[in-house]
Amino acid sequence: MLCEELKIKGQLAKEASILLSTLSTETKNQALAAMAEALERHEEEILAANQKDIDRAKEKGIGNAMLDRLLLTPSRIKEMAHGLRALIALPDPVGEIEAVWKGAQAIEIGRMRVPLGVIGIIYEARPNVTVDAAGLCLKTGNAVILRGGSEALHSNITITRVISQAAESAWIPRGSIQLIENPDREVAVQLMKLNEYLDVLIPRGGAGLIQTVVQNSTVPVIETGIGNCHVYVDSEADLAMAEEIIINAKCQRPAVCNAAETLLVHEKVAADFIPKAGKRLRQLGVEIRGCNRTRALFPEAKAVTEEDYAAEFLDLILAVKVVDSLDEALQHIRTFGTKHSEAIVTESYRNSRRFLKEVDAAAVYVNASTRFTDGFQFGFGAEIGISTQKLHARGPMGLKELTTIKYVIQGDGQVRK
Amino acid sequence: MLCEELKIKGQLAKEASILLSTLSTETKNQALAAMAEALERHEEEILAANQKDIDRAKEKGIGNAMLDRLLLTPSRIKEMAHGLRALIALPDPVGEIEAVWKGAQAIEIGRMRVPLGVIGIIYEARPNVTVDAAGLCLKTGNAVILRGGSEALHSNITITRVISQAAESAWIPRGSIQLIENPDREVAVQLMKLNEYLDVLIPRGGAGLIQTVVQNSTVPVIETGIGNCHVYVDSEADLAMAEEIIINAKCQRPAVCNAAETLLVHEKVAADFIPKAGKRLRQLGVEIRGCNRTRALFPEAKAVTEEDYAAEFLDLILAVKVVDSLDEALQHIRTFGTKHSEAIVTESYRNSRRFLKEVDAAAVYVNASTRFTDGFQFGFGAEIGISTQKLHARGPMGLKELTTIKYVIQGDGQVRK
Repeated sequence: MLCEELKIKGQLAKEASILLSTLSTETKNQALAAMAEALERHEEEILAANQKDIDRAKEKGIGNAMLDRLLLTPSRIKEMAHGLRALIALPDPVGEIEAVWKGAQAIEIGRMRVPLGVIGIIYEARPNVTVDAAGLCLKTGNAVILRGGSEALHSNITITRVISQAAESAWIPRGSIQLIENPDREVAVQLMKLNEYLDVLIPRGGAGLIQTVVQNSTVPVIETGIGNCHVYVDSEADLAMAEEIIINAKCQRPAVCNAAETLLVHEKVAADFIPKAGKRLRQLGVEIRGCNRTRALFPEAKAVTEEDYAAEFLDLILAVKVVDSLDEALQHIRTFGTKHSEAIVTESYRNSRRFLKEVDAAAVYVNASTRFTDGFQFGFGAEIGISTQKLHARGPMGLKELTTIKYVIQGDGQVRK
Repeated sequence: MLCEELKIKGQLAKEASILLSTLSTETKNQALAAMAEALERHEEEILAANQKDIDRAKEKGIGNAMLDRLLLTPSRIKEMAHGLRALIALPDPVGEIEAVWKGAQAIEIGRMRVPLGVIGIIYEARPNVTVDAAGLCLKTGNAVILRGGSEALHSNITITRVISQAAESAWIPRGSIQLIENPDREVAVQLMKLNEYLDVLIPRGGAGLIQTVVQNSTVPVIETGIGNCHVYVDSEADLAMAEEIIINAKCQRPAVCNAAETLLVHEKVAADFIPKAGKRLRQLGVEIRGCNRTRALFPEAKAVTEEDYAAEFLDLILAVKVVDSLDEALQHIRTFGTKHSEAIVTESYRNSRRFLKEVDAAAVYVNASTRFTDGFQFGFGAEIGISTQKLHARGPMGLKELTTIKYVIQGDGQVRK
């Protein structure tokens, strides 16, 4: 039996999406401004709801990292409001005609950008995702059904009420922004099969959540986020540059998906590179897990395992392997990579070309840090996540990736011969 | 337990796809030519295998329509070869850089078209799909795993052997074109969950097959083909044009997905339009199932049911409904349409704009037949199917829709601040 809440909210979202798809950019922008303003005006209420979640989480003995993700502060609420306002300035992809051409019998065919319809977002205990996802979906004319982690339920209920009321007051149809409040896991599973109402489902969170959604969903899914990223230091690398790149890719923000997890070093430069880079990485608090050749050059390194090569540490841990050739590096990346972001450091034109062509990943780098795989760094101005699958969207997903196209065909009575 | 055949062929396809993705257009075109030539050279062998399938199908008492789809003849084999040769002239999307721009810190970002990887195709008893799908996947640098209907097994085995050997002789890696020979349904279900090896699964066939794949697959699916298409004759229509359009949309080839299944007529023009158009449709053998107002104007019409409105007849049957307004027509299309192809016939600029904007379908027409929704009519030069979903590809899918993108980023040592 389909849970009543899903059914009602699904229908409402579907109806809202029809109107939403025809709204002007101006109307949508006014709603975004109203939502931002409402968040700031209701700061106290939101903080009070968040306090309940924090209290309950502490009772449950939830870890500090998660508590930090759950916590809202006045400045974090300001950031969320700022995020909404930043969307106002971005171009609205909806209604754009990307191309027009003549088909058979000179029939005029146009490719028009249109909203996807109703987007489901399943995420963990980060209340900022509620605002972020609602804003991105509204700007692109999509209705959204949100399903956040139960730990953030009070925060999410209050935030959703505040922003959806503000949106409605600015002529956005009721049902455009909704939160599923029933915390049962079974309801989440039903949401994954809600093909009647949902056009797409986007999971945002850790590997466990994403795998659950991929395995259970009959609604089309956009996979996001798992990044086991490599930096390969080629035999022809500028070693000083390589050092800066691996330090940035590993240390600048280790808990994110575009941080590097494994360093591959060509044997020709290993003796020059590993002791020096290893020392600096150690000074920055990085635990190094190396292959035998790495450990011979850098005895402080622990022994690496196959599991380490496959792991997304999301922490100050780095696997290091010495390879005999570019081919071995490519093979290692094929075996262990998650098709997120991969980098080579080299001064060899030929090797750079091979790496760019042969590595199968959302973002492939020559002589730059993997940390640039990000909607803002790419210049998209916004980001709903980083797709690591190949259908529909790959890499950082901006506003355009929350839309689809339809063909609009204008004729003068043409019939097919 | 994963069936051994799937495991072996999956691994082989995955390996082949790596090499395939780097092949030059010239190599792929030479292979297409070799495959076409081999089909013609092995005509007798293919016909003999097909005869086995035909004999078995007749024993089983399979209907004439299906027998006809299953049947190969010398001219049909020529057509298949011709289809492969036609792909040679088409531009190869792989490796194309669609855009280059500067991201943060002037990092140079390019969007490059690349193959999807390994594509699974599940289809019914049409041996021509074997050749067609293999050719399209090869041209786009993808490995393909084919799973055809068991009725066509002998034909498919022989065809696949002939074309894959020809491809290998032209330097295409072994494993690029493979057929699953085990006819068990369980194997098909396992194929739908072969995420380890498959990047995408495309079902080609009837509604039953497509629903089975959507419901069971954990591999990303591109849904194709179900078309409950409408022609709406507006109050401001040119009625002579409307008559030609509905006759073409219904009768020119009734068994295909872009044929019209329901005619909606504005009440203002119903008395002028329905008797005249109805008479011509009847003369062409069309069975008309009408609402009460339709039957009052055209007594030959049978009574229509809700099921008729929802049906994809794929036959010379047409549901007809008189509506009070454009809004009612839009509502009817929202309720019963399958988001394939929808047409309005009107001389009203305002109504044409509303229809184009508000109808949510892959292809929306003003004053033209729905029959144009087709890769060849659109000028794509080839077609793997017509997507009726919104992710990745919508409407006719040509070569480009069998590819994805990757970002290639060239830096000079940039690290993120």
